[in-house]
Amino acid sequence: MPARTGTRLDPWFSSYAERAHGMRASEIRALFAVASRPEVVSLAGGMPNISGLPMDFLADMSARLLRDRGQEALQYGSGQGEVEMREHIVEVMRYDGVHAHPDDVVVTTGSQQALDLVTEIFIDPGDVVVAEAPSYVGALGVFRAYQADVVHVPMDGDGLIPDALDRTLTALKAAGRRVKMLYTVPNFHNPAGVSMAEERRPQVVEICRRHGVLILEDNPYGLLGFSGDPLPSLKSFDADGVVYLGSFSKTFAPGYRVGWAAAPHAVREKLVLASEAAILSPSRLSQLSISAYLAGYDWYGQVKQFRGEYETRRDAMMSALDEYLPELSWTVPEGGFYTWVTLPPGLDAQAMLPRAVTNLVAYVSGTAFYADGTGHDHMRLSFCYPTPERIREGVRRLAGVIRSEAELVEMFGTTRPADGREPLIDNPSPDQT
Amino acid sequence: MPARTGTRLDPWFSSYAERAHGMRASEIRALFAVASRPEVVSLAGGMPNISGLPMDFLADMSARLLRDRGQEALQYGSGQGEVEMREHIVEVMRYDGVHAHPDDVVVTTGSQQALDLVTEIFIDPGDVVVAEAPSYVGALGVFRAYQADVVHVPMDGDGLIPDALDRTLTALKAAGRRVKMLYTVPNFHNPAGVSMAEERRPQVVEICRRHGVLILEDNPYGLLGFSGDPLPSLKSFDADGVVYLGSFSKTFAPGYRVGWAAAPHAVREKLVLASEAAILSPSRLSQLSISAYLAGYDWYGQVKQFRGEYETRRDAMMSALDEYLPELSWTVPEGGFYTWVTLPPGLDAQAMLPRAVTNLVAYVSGTAFYADGTGHDHMRLSFCYPTPERIREGVRRLAGVIRSEAELVEMFGTTRPADGREPLIDNPSPDQT
Repeated sequence: MPARTGTRLDPWFSSYAERAHGMRASEIRALFAVASRPEVVSLAGGMPNISGLPMDFLADMSARLLRDRGQEALQYGSGQGEVEMREHIVEVMRYDGVHAHPDDVVVTTGSQQALDLVTEIFIDPGDVVVAEAPSYVGALGVFRAYQADVVHVPMDGDGLIPDALDRTLTALKAAGRRVKMLYTVPNFHNPAGVSMAEERRPQVVEICRRHGVLILEDNPYGLLGFSGDPLPSLKSFDADGVVYLGSFSKTFAPGYRVGWAAAPHAVREKLVLASEAAILSPSRLSQLSISAYLAGYDWYGQVKQFRGEYETRRDAMMSALDEYLPELSWTVPEGGFYTWVTLPPGLDAQAMLPRAVTNLVAYVSGTAFYADGTGHDHMRLSFCYPTPERIREGVRRLAGVIRSEAELVEMFGTTRPADGREPLIDNPSPDQT
Repeated sequence: MPARTGTRLDPWFSSYAERAHGMRASEIRALFAVASRPEVVSLAGGMPNISGLPMDFLADMSARLLRDRGQEALQYGSGQGEVEMREHIVEVMRYDGVHAHPDDVVVTTGSQQALDLVTEIFIDPGDVVVAEAPSYVGALGVFRAYQADVVHVPMDGDGLIPDALDRTLTALKAAGRRVKMLYTVPNFHNPAGVSMAEERRPQVVEICRRHGVLILEDNPYGLLGFSGDPLPSLKSFDADGVVYLGSFSKTFAPGYRVGWAAAPHAVREKLVLASEAAILSPSRLSQLSISAYLAGYDWYGQVKQFRGEYETRRDAMMSALDEYLPELSWTVPEGGFYTWVTLPPGLDAQAMLPRAVTNLVAYVSGTAFYADGTGHDHMRLSFCYPTPERIREGVRRLAGVIRSEAELVEMFGTTRPADGREPLIDNPSPDQT
């Protein structure tokens, strides 16, 4: 038989779609395989700490669910998600000030799928998504898969800067670009560790409305604030202008893979059709399990316990940074999983990473969170998963790596390349959510 | 604030991507909401009959899994799927003659997601997918979402006709079209109810290889044959030329949403990256649950029990058709869920459907299974879910509807429009899988 049209290594090389050419496993992926060894302290991961979950309760509940409702739980379900699950989701969203109807909600395979579906229905190749600088690596991966151009807007300690957003949208419009969405993580930002100030929220909503730009509000961490009530969501200011994404991965457990979108009616309809084409229906067993947990357990008490655990870990990281790396600057998160560290002049987080892993500590380079090749001067440190003792040890090791690197810089000049290189965004992995 | 760019009914009307314009809920969807009422006998559904599953075993197993390995099961997992699950999948595929390595397998949220991912990485708008006439409605929905042109190739009682495939591929090439894939369901075809004859399989593989066309072999029903061993899969003839899709939805239970793709190495790598962008990782809890079931229960014995149940239902449908509709013709499936019925001249399955539902019986119109607006002269009847008594009653009601319709045709001429109208493919729903 004659040969195929591809190469020897890949017989289908010349058959791929345009969008697939950007899909490749980066060097970072291989590095993270090393970083997952137990001797390495990973300050890279975004895995929630689920050791506090009531496993006996969950075991009994699962057994009861299969005995009492097994025929239902193990069958195909609704493409939009089970009514019972959507009713619970509406209750959960009330804590963020969102007053939605179960009919507005689409249940997805993690909120990542919701992000994928919204992008699928709105983005043609070359359309612009405006996003915070930096932005969640998994969102950048989705936007790239749909061939969007991401334009970053700066943040400060109070989150996205409204004036900068307004100027960016005006300039993009003047340049004739089609801007479809603002993607934002307003609470306990991944990776920046800051929240959008309360007074900025209606301003951001008004600016997007004025420019005809949909807001994609990604809120996996909103209930994980260490003090005070959750801030009102952007969606609470303009239900028709915002698609809100939520998840049970951080407030309960990621293994069920249940997230959701709450969307304006017409958008919701398209999301359901797109989701049915993609997966037929989300897992009914997962949805009924989570519904039983929410109905039968003090889930909000469990969230409060998670908050306490993450606050203890945040404190451990802050005090370790104070002690071992006082010359650096970082954000002090009031919730969530991450702090965003600025490196001393001349250091390159991406170039330094292999040396850090050799020294048994891992982080995510700032470059993962920019679509434009910048971010070498930052790193994301996560405090969600390791114990406080391990966090302290990880920061101690990191300080040693940074010191050695700084000495090299002093001797030989910067190790940091000019910003704007080919971006090295890897796909999201469990270590980078 | 000024108005948005859309309409009053949909503020985002003018913001959607090109691909989203085809996404709309059809009239069929509303009809199926009616058809799901208990008084209607649905011969439309593709829901497996899972009443024979060992619920007590599954309940105990789930409880034990959460008690013993809860921290693992409820955490994020691998984007490719758990090694343990992929090893089991390799064993399951051996029954189809596929000799794959766990590294070749990507676990997905049902095989529907695998179908979506393969299409995502291969199809640019305007590329051609060649598919059997008729084809699975859920695959047509995916191909449409990625703006592929579907070209149908005829089947006969022995499945896809190799000569017709060869001629079609040659003609498309001569016309300068980019043909990327052949999509085929070789075993117990949905909706046609036939299987590709054993001697045709290597011929189809050779033709596709010669034309440089990837084969997407969708095999959810392969283990559900009523007699004899499963026929060798297309992939067993050319591992590098075929992406094989499998599912636990029909051989175990759909509620876990676990399917898979077994792909050539380079394709597998892209599938994993695309899946991570879409959902991060498939449910670890679902994968560990299915692995525990496969390891701890006589799953193949359970498959044999399913076969027996479906054979009984097939027999009930065949004898009811013989008795009530002897003037019609239909396929006699040797496995799977469906028979494909040819209507008397002049009758239109799509136009007749509302009248059938009024008479408390539902089916899927043949038009759902063609991308080109044809199929009015066919209907798909499924025998998987209702009891034999209900199947019999459903066919009896259907016969009444067809008789009335035929009388109308006799009085007023055909109710069937010329083929080639705007196709009315709905998205897959649980009733149409």
